[in-house]
Amino acid sequence: MEKTITLALLGFGTIGTGVVKTLKQNKQLLEKRIGANLSLKWIADLDIVRDRGVEVDPSTLITDGMRIVNDPEVDIVIELAGGCTFAREFILQALKNGKSVVTANKALLAEHGREIFNAEQESSGLIGFEASVAGGIPVIKTQREGLVANNILSIYGIINGTANYILTKMSKEKISFDEALRDAQKLGYAEADPSFDVDGIDSAHKLLLLGSLAAETIFSMDQIYVEGIRHITERDIEYAAEFDYVIKLLAIYKKKNGMVQLRVHPTLLPCSNLLSSVMDSFNAISFRGDIVGTNMYYGRGAGEMPTASAVVADIIDIGRALVSGTLRNRNDFHNTADIPVVQNIDDIETRYYMRFSVIDQPGVLAQISGILGKNNISISDVYQKERRAGDAVPLIMITHRAREHDVRSALSEIANLDIIKADTVFIRMEE
Amino acid sequence: MEKTITLALLGFGTIGTGVVKTLKQNKQLLEKRIGANLSLKWIADLDIVRDRGVEVDPSTLITDGMRIVNDPEVDIVIELAGGCTFAREFILQALKNGKSVVTANKALLAEHGREIFNAEQESSGLIGFEASVAGGIPVIKTQREGLVANNILSIYGIINGTANYILTKMSKEKISFDEALRDAQKLGYAEADPSFDVDGIDSAHKLLLLGSLAAETIFSMDQIYVEGIRHITERDIEYAAEFDYVIKLLAIYKKKNGMVQLRVHPTLLPCSNLLSSVMDSFNAISFRGDIVGTNMYYGRGAGEMPTASAVVADIIDIGRALVSGTLRNRNDFHNTADIPVVQNIDDIETRYYMRFSVIDQPGVLAQISGILGKNNISISDVYQKERRAGDAVPLIMITHRAREHDVRSALSEIANLDIIKADTVFIRMEE
Repeated sequence: MEKTITLALLGFGTIGTGVVKTLKQNKQLLEKRIGANLSLKWIADLDIVRDRGVEVDPSTLITDGMRIVNDPEVDIVIELAGGCTFAREFILQALKNGKSVVTANKALLAEHGREIFNAEQESSGLIGFEASVAGGIPVIKTQREGLVANNILSIYGIINGTANYILTKMSKEKISFDEALRDAQKLGYAEADPSFDVDGIDSAHKLLLLGSLAAETIFSMDQIYVEGIRHITERDIEYAAEFDYVIKLLAIYKKKNGMVQLRVHPTLLPCSNLLSSVMDSFNAISFRGDIVGTNMYYGRGAGEMPTASAVVADIIDIGRALVSGTLRNRNDFHNTADIPVVQNIDDIETRYYMRFSVIDQPGVLAQISGILGKNNISISDVYQKERRAGDAVPLIMITHRAREHDVRSALSEIANLDIIKADTVFIRMEE
Repeated sequence: MEKTITLALLGFGTIGTGVVKTLKQNKQLLEKRIGANLSLKWIADLDIVRDRGVEVDPSTLITDGMRIVNDPEVDIVIELAGGCTFAREFILQALKNGKSVVTANKALLAEHGREIFNAEQESSGLIGFEASVAGGIPVIKTQREGLVANNILSIYGIINGTANYILTKMSKEKISFDEALRDAQKLGYAEADPSFDVDGIDSAHKLLLLGSLAAETIFSMDQIYVEGIRHITERDIEYAAEFDYVIKLLAIYKKKNGMVQLRVHPTLLPCSNLLSSVMDSFNAISFRGDIVGTNMYYGRGAGEMPTASAVVADIIDIGRALVSGTLRNRNDFHNTADIPVVQNIDDIETRYYMRFSVIDQPGVLAQISGILGKNNISISDVYQKERRAGDAVPLIMITHRAREHDVRSALSEIANLDIIKADTVFIRMEE
């Protein structure tokens, strides 16, 4: 083949190693599919000594990332260094130099999206970020191209494998959040500091990208309501099951009447919803389009090789365009008209699961339902099973659709009742 | 926008109407995304009088399909006429004229694939056929682009909505195939002559396309083993459930050691497999790639608007390339080396569900298992519940992995036993 696409890798960690392995293992296939030779000229990392279990030409290893970003021969910079400092500088410099960039760095794109996508606009290069959402599942391409005929009306995503692993474990083994977290940490599914995963931040980063593509604008993190899963107990999971619901950490985008919702929180999903069957560390995303209806995509959302699959897909995509001489910025994010307003969480309307810890005495139900009713919240189901005289007992209620503002008002009023013995847990529901 | 992409529609039926509606409803959005104006110059159909519930400019309506295929102004011909006669001629002529073609015609592509894809090779136009497999789910793009880094090792598809609807109905309501079929016909899910759907032919057409893309060659229909669902009874579905399995009509592609399997048949799937949760007329396809592992895609596989979503996605894809001046044939099917051998069904190895109708008398189990054992088939589970003295009773066996040739030999020997009172049903299993 006459043409060669020259690659440079920034960050020789887990995903970087997967990319190097993939480029080696499927070299022939990839070069045929791209219609050009692929040459990995540089691998930059602070540690160029450690054995990654894959053979590389020592002359490609380098510690100076900026040098490869400025190498005129390099066509595509693969940024897998992570973080928001050096990675940001490398990407901006690469774009400035007219190179294309492939990255899995959702945190960076979510925190500095506007700056980076503006730099892309001014560059002759492109950014591919398929690997930044849902690892091996090509949801970015699907949303941009496969569903291009559609206005995306809603997105529901289980897009954090760690949180889903923990919730699955809690459900299957009836163990607490802390126990399940320790297990996830032992298996390497969760970090020593798990906050990004279990507090919903990582899901919010990814939701920001999916939602921004759907609305064709760039949202910022402070527009997303984020709530994690630390307060979910194995009992809530059990009670939800009594009503044929499971609890999942969902990332939700909805668009209606020019308003959008962007929220990440634990959610009760009915067992009839296919997303409720997504177990362990798997990811799944469902899109509803105005033309196509509902589609769902499922697979591994993280890990060395699944994520490498997405990184290499972006390399091939950009490489094909380089071969045919037509890199073309798609302007996905640069909606100038109709920028939607993001709804405050207080204004959303949905059904709620509530678990009250109450003293088991006559009149409790009347008191609580009275306050709910006064706040325009009507109850669809009540569940009270265990009874321990004198002791606090759980009282579960499922509401009809209610406004979050009303729910919060009612719950703060209920919190002052003598019969309430612990903080009330409330979890939003979706169908 | 300076450029205009000129479209011509062949076939103003259900899908054609959906395409016209989509082009109208999302005109602004589509033109922004394509970066050009979209003009639907012609709508050809033998019936240009009937009201389709969508307003069209009467001057676009025409009965002469060949005229629009030869109109030099037309960039993209949308072939939704169906069938293998006129549609074939239109497509070949359009390609000869350097036009691109978008089609949902899986039967034509499966029956005349080599001729049509060869014509595409020689043309400056492209064929888009996203809508020909799994309606609104963009699996062709996913396979070609999203999973481009992978050797596809296996594909499992529920890709006929009618058959899946019937099997779901039989399972939920414990009714016979005939009853469920009549219900599907009443709802318009099944044709008066349902053979394409229930005998697996339509699934085979789609499998041929998916398998051909995976192997990068063009298979022919006679290389696919095809078995439908007419012989499945509600009892088989019930017995399968006893072992935590469901019965689905699956299209299967597998590649191993340079050999491929291409087969469509009813299959017992464990409830732990997400495909087992795909109900009613929905479709789902799972791919296993050597890099990414297993991914699954789910949605509506047919219908006016879902299929239109896929047709319009192809129009946008090709339109974008026309705008940037780089239509590029991807040579997907033109593997010259390593053309894989398709395995004969006799040579496959899998687990089997067998339902024998036997006289309920001592020694029956010994006789049957003796013959199975002699043919290298070992039994993993046996199930016999109903007992009616003297009468024939069902005896269910699940085997360990066995070679199909051995299974057929054993069953033909068993068929000659006096204790066997009806044809033995055997259904292949997958994990």
